[in-house]
Amino acid sequence: MKKIKLLIVLFLLNPMVIAANPKSTQSNTPQHRLMPVPASVQFHEGRLKIDAAFTVFVQGHSDARLEAALFRASRRLEGRTGLEFTRTPATEARSARLLVQCNGPGKAVPSVDEDESYSLDVSDTQAALKAPTVVGVMRGLETFLQLLEGDRSGYFLPSVSIQDKPRFPWRGLLIDVGRHYEPVEVLKRNLDGMAAVKLNVLHWHLTEDQGFRIESKRFPKLHQMGSDGLFYTQEQIRDVIAYARDRGIRVMPEFDMPGHITSWLVAHPELGSAPGPYAIERKAGIMMPAFDPTREQTYKFLEEFFAEIATLFPDDYIHIGGDENEGKQWSANPQIQAFMKAKGIKDNHALQAYFNQRLSKILQKNGKKMIGWEEILHADLPKDAVIQSWRGPASLADAARKGYDGILSSGYYIDLMFPTWQHYNVDPIAPGANLSEQELRHILGGEATMWSEWVSPETIDSRIWPRTAAIAERLWSASSVTDVDDMYRRLESISIQLEELGLTHNKNSDMMLRRLARTKEIGPLKTLVSVVEPVKEYRRTQAHPATMLTPLTRLIDAARPDSEAARRFAVLVDGMLSDAPYLRRNQDLIKSTLLEWRDVRPTLDAMIDKAPILREAEQLSGDLSDIGTIGLEALSYIASDVAPPEQWREAKIARLEKAASPKAEVEFAIIGPVRQLVLLAAELQNLKQIPQAQWKDRVRGLAAEKKR
Amino acid sequence: MKKIKLLIVLFLLNPMVIAANPKSTQSNTPQHRLMPVPASVQFHEGRLKIDAAFTVFVQGHSDARLEAALFRASRRLEGRTGLEFTRTPATEARSARLLVQCNGPGKAVPSVDEDESYSLDVSDTQAALKAPTVVGVMRGLETFLQLLEGDRSGYFLPSVSIQDKPRFPWRGLLIDVGRHYEPVEVLKRNLDGMAAVKLNVLHWHLTEDQGFRIESKRFPKLHQMGSDGLFYTQEQIRDVIAYARDRGIRVMPEFDMPGHITSWLVAHPELGSAPGPYAIERKAGIMMPAFDPTREQTYKFLEEFFAEIATLFPDDYIHIGGDENEGKQWSANPQIQAFMKAKGIKDNHALQAYFNQRLSKILQKNGKKMIGWEEILHADLPKDAVIQSWRGPASLADAARKGYDGILSSGYYIDLMFPTWQHYNVDPIAPGANLSEQELRHILGGEATMWSEWVSPETIDSRIWPRTAAIAERLWSASSVTDVDDMYRRLESISIQLEELGLTHNKNSDMMLRRLARTKEIGPLKTLVSVVEPVKEYRRTQAHPATMLTPLTRLIDAARPDSEAARRFAVLVDGMLSDAPYLRRNQDLIKSTLLEWRDVRPTLDAMIDKAPILREAEQLSGDLSDIGTIGLEALSYIASDVAPPEQWREAKIARLEKAASPKAEVEFAIIGPVRQLVLLAAELQNLKQIPQAQWKDRVRGLAAEKKR
Repeated sequence: MKKIKLLIVLFLLNPMVIAANPKSTQSNTPQHRLMPVPASVQFHEGRLKIDAAFTVFVQGHSDARLEAALFRASRRLEGRTGLEFTRTPATEARSARLLVQCNGPGKAVPSVDEDESYSLDVSDTQAALKAPTVVGVMRGLETFLQLLEGDRSGYFLPSVSIQDKPRFPWRGLLIDVGRHYEPVEVLKRNLDGMAAVKLNVLHWHLTEDQGFRIESKRFPKLHQMGSDGLFYTQEQIRDVIAYARDRGIRVMPEFDMPGHITSWLVAHPELGSAPGPYAIERKAGIMMPAFDPTREQTYKFLEEFFAEIATLFPDDYIHIGGDENEGKQWSANPQIQAFMKAKGIKDNHALQAYFNQRLSKILQKNGKKMIGWEEILHADLPKDAVIQSWRGPASLADAARKGYDGILSSGYYIDLMFPTWQHYNVDPIAPGANLSEQELRHILGGEATMWSEWVSPETIDSRIWPRTAAIAERLWSASSVTDVDDMYRRLESISIQLEELGLTHNKNSDMMLRRLARTKEIGPLKTLVSVVEPVKEYRRTQAHPATMLTPLTRLIDAARPDSEAARRFAVLVDGMLSDAPYLRRNQDLIKSTLLEWRDVRPTLDAMIDKAPILREAEQLSGDLSDIGTIGLEALSYIASDVAPPEQWREAKIARLEKAASPKAEVEFAIIGPVRQLVLLAAELQNLKQIPQAQWKDRVRGLAAEKKR
Repeated sequence: MKKIKLLIVLFLLNPMVIAANPKSTQSNTPQHRLMPVPASVQFHEGRLKIDAAFTVFVQGHSDARLEAALFRASRRLEGRTGLEFTRTPATEARSARLLVQCNGPGKAVPSVDEDESYSLDVSDTQAALKAPTVVGVMRGLETFLQLLEGDRSGYFLPSVSIQDKPRFPWRGLLIDVGRHYEPVEVLKRNLDGMAAVKLNVLHWHLTEDQGFRIESKRFPKLHQMGSDGLFYTQEQIRDVIAYARDRGIRVMPEFDMPGHITSWLVAHPELGSAPGPYAIERKAGIMMPAFDPTREQTYKFLEEFFAEIATLFPDDYIHIGGDENEGKQWSANPQIQAFMKAKGIKDNHALQAYFNQRLSKILQKNGKKMIGWEEILHADLPKDAVIQSWRGPASLADAARKGYDGILSSGYYIDLMFPTWQHYNVDPIAPGANLSEQELRHILGGEATMWSEWVSPETIDSRIWPRTAAIAERLWSASSVTDVDDMYRRLESISIQLEELGLTHNKNSDMMLRRLARTKEIGPLKTLVSVVEPVKEYRRTQAHPATMLTPLTRLIDAARPDSEAARRFAVLVDGMLSDAPYLRRNQDLIKSTLLEWRDVRPTLDAMIDKAPILREAEQLSGDLSDIGTIGLEALSYIASDVAPPEQWREAKIARLEKAASPKAEVEFAIIGPVRQLVLLAAELQNLKQIPQAQWKDRVRGLAAEKKR
């Protein structure tokens, strides 16, 4: 899945996309904080009081899963409000504050064709949640919880009528536990997070060159020799599946093959296309080992293996990977070459097709449908196979035209550290794809992918959340829901709500800074970390060679993608520019922020002196101080309406460019708005010649120009 | 264990204890950050560099437990330094940075007579850790990790010679999972924390009126009906025991009886002394249900039950509770009264003794020793029984004189929210107890007790840590280690180190504040919470009736015992008083702190308006503002050397008293030093009549006077 690199670069350079966080012109409903935005929301006058008298009544179908969901929702509501509710259900529908009407259990095993729709009507006396299935009720309960507001009079839900159902039936999160293992409790809290934003597929990437993470009773050496002892027992797997089902989430396992299988070969070198021996891979990247697709032994092994797996995982689908097999071992193996010649298989791609056809029959025999990365798309692929695209919506549209279901992951690679708005702008349906109704139905949805080369149990939540909530919205809400500012406003709320589920995306950063600095007084370091982001794409290891055994406790690990502080600062500068020609708005806040940056250096340097692990941040300290100084200079020219001396602009822009280059594998996210301040100061006299309404765009245009 | 209330009050009023954080006059070794302080520490010139070339070599005995301990220690060292060590052991002793010399495995099952001693010699070239047992090595590894320092030249350990062994062999933490259940991962991270400060007993309080938390295969209705589904499977129990053993920690189960057993009777009312039916208790307090000690059926049941338990728990001891049985059900039951008459059992206490004797035989039969709360001490108690004291060191000394082993918990009740120094000052050996050598050996140590009426998985770590580290020091280090300021200095370091084990004592407070305020901008609320503490002793429910089902997400739950901010402010004021007659020292810092308190009100009130759960903090906001104002007034009189008007002193002291009364079940921890400022301002002219050296004591004396 690493070829995405090239495409991301193209995508970044696409001026349509980069232009600026695009906004739709849709007039939004008033300030609700729902995410994903429901299909239809109508607010009314009035409110439903939430107090200690809160009770629930279930009408129609009920079962253990529904009861458990109501129990969890009630506890979360109690946690937020501090109220203690009675544990006795209401005795009649009329008197319940929350009336749940469920028509039936839905699918016994969570399925892609589960009906997840619900309606929620909140009046002054009752919230009525109606759904055809238990999963629909669960989706509605999350909306119910998101509606909670409070003021002087107490907690309440605004009166509202909501009709809701997902735009796409397949809304997933891939978690790669191959590169770095994640304990069960990490998976569980992320399943809770997924349910909170209505995601419905955990794509469990269980095997990789770097680790075989699942107990096989049939071939126990696989996990014994291929996992460093870090694997899930079958009991744990069943536990995770049950936990997910309880939240209406499918668990789809992936066994990536014929490549990405080094860890299998540690125990079973006889399956490989080169003699071995093999050791668990410690590096990141595309590795050469691949199954030998020419020997019957391979298929016999896989037949027995998948027979075991198919029993363990109830989901309809098994993901067979299929990506990034470069076939180097195949080309180098004379016996494989002879086989290809004999069978008239013309190249490695065709050989992989042959392998996939055999694999597909094995899965069929076990009653499973096949899904794989888009490399698996070839002539003889069975029509019930699903294509997962890392190349982009266009190839998904192609697959749809050929009659294949597909899901999009290109654009949702959350391991690459891109800001939320960028993922948010990616739609599974390619603009201008011109698909027929029937073809459109083949686009099942998408998945965020948490590849785990550089995440640990301490950091993984901060790589997944809150950004994945915005991807969840893209996959659930109408395609017209595209207001980026409004998304960010709601995302801040959701991010806090996600914490009640045990997710550590907000709280672990400070903890890591305390460990780095070995003190509780982390203020200056926090200032720095709040305005930097980890380098994007695959630049981390380019700068700093690392393996799967490298500790993930450095500054970059404490830093988070999509700096909130930077975004706020950009908004402040935006506001100032909109206040042309006075430029008074936000000046005080901009100034105090710049002062903080300028003045952080001495204390930060003192911290760095005491903590060798922070030495790599030394230049960043000076950079931040200079960024602050430059911004303050610009501000003072702007405020005094005095033109800066001739070389000033160039010198400052050059200094900013230097500051913009990554150090310690992090980069400043505040260069853009400070560049705007410099250009504003330098161009102020020229700007006065054009209409005030155009100042903002002119300055932003100049700043964007300088960026290239 | 609730009778402690009275005694704590006495203890608080004891002027010897309350006078002020007492300090020893011992001259400490230079600024090391070891906790517990080792038996002997000698620093030398020089340092051992810690870099990527770090390697380990094991000499003598090695085994899986030792290897695992070394693996964990290496990973923690990597995490702190960001260095990646080779995973290959050194090839020879001489070249290893860490040489471990272990003489043998020690006890197969962690035991009270395990040899935990070790020596650690760090030179410029090597750290040599020697121990007779694997557990000794583990204790030494924690010291090794605590020695890590860093400066411009990199990470290093100072050269040092350490000889170390514990003062007491029994150093425990009781975790009550009866009132509130704690998931296995909570127990595990706390076991890691215990190991980090060299505690060696997890006292697992498994059954209570409010919950029966352990799977019984013999009597499955016990956990099925008595736990709300919140119990540990036997597999989980074995997992926790193995995890603890891997860290050299005993796991001793407690089955509290004959009282505290309501949850048993839900399934087995036939064991009770009143007919039932019974329901799981939801309230806190002392309950009436008790086993019927007069029926053979009871003993037959317990015999089968403990036969199962004895197999599950390998520890030598089983704790049978025995506390707080008031015998009301016994007195009310004519059949029990008849039995007593027939047997010549004169009162309920004697009846409980009869029960304990029977119980003791059952345990003996299963090869287990009995331990119980001090109520079990009576004439016929077998001499190998252990007494756990909640009354105080004096009763422990009494037991020792009678030939019984004992451990102290009085003074270590961490659920009562007392500051660290108070626990730190409690010694298991009563001052002036005058015990013989042999009697002294009966004092085995002590246990901190985490009773769980008001803790949740979210808050429990902050109730245990870091205070328990100071108790661990009391139980490990020499009795002469009593410097409170130095303890606090080291505790701050340890508190951060404990976070790398996943403990949430620091990070969950902000998370809870975000949930309370429903925003990330929690600054003002954090200011408030940093200077308040939860009310002490049992005042929480007196103020706010609550049950085991009440959400624990309020301000009091986010607040932490032993406010660090308050302690720092007190130190600032202390410093100023020491600077008599100039009183210049710390004035700026005191002023800026007071300003922050004074000015927090508007933003804090705005937050409260939006979050009904914070309404209870409304008065606190005004109080804090007034405390700040009063302090600033005092400061301005002091600075200008002007005497305040006549009624000023009285008015301000009265206002402070009002602020001192708890609201929302929290209380300000900053009243004392602000009171000192007021008295200093009011008495400034009088103070000039006495020697400068006496100012501090005079002001502190006046402030203490006002307190009563």
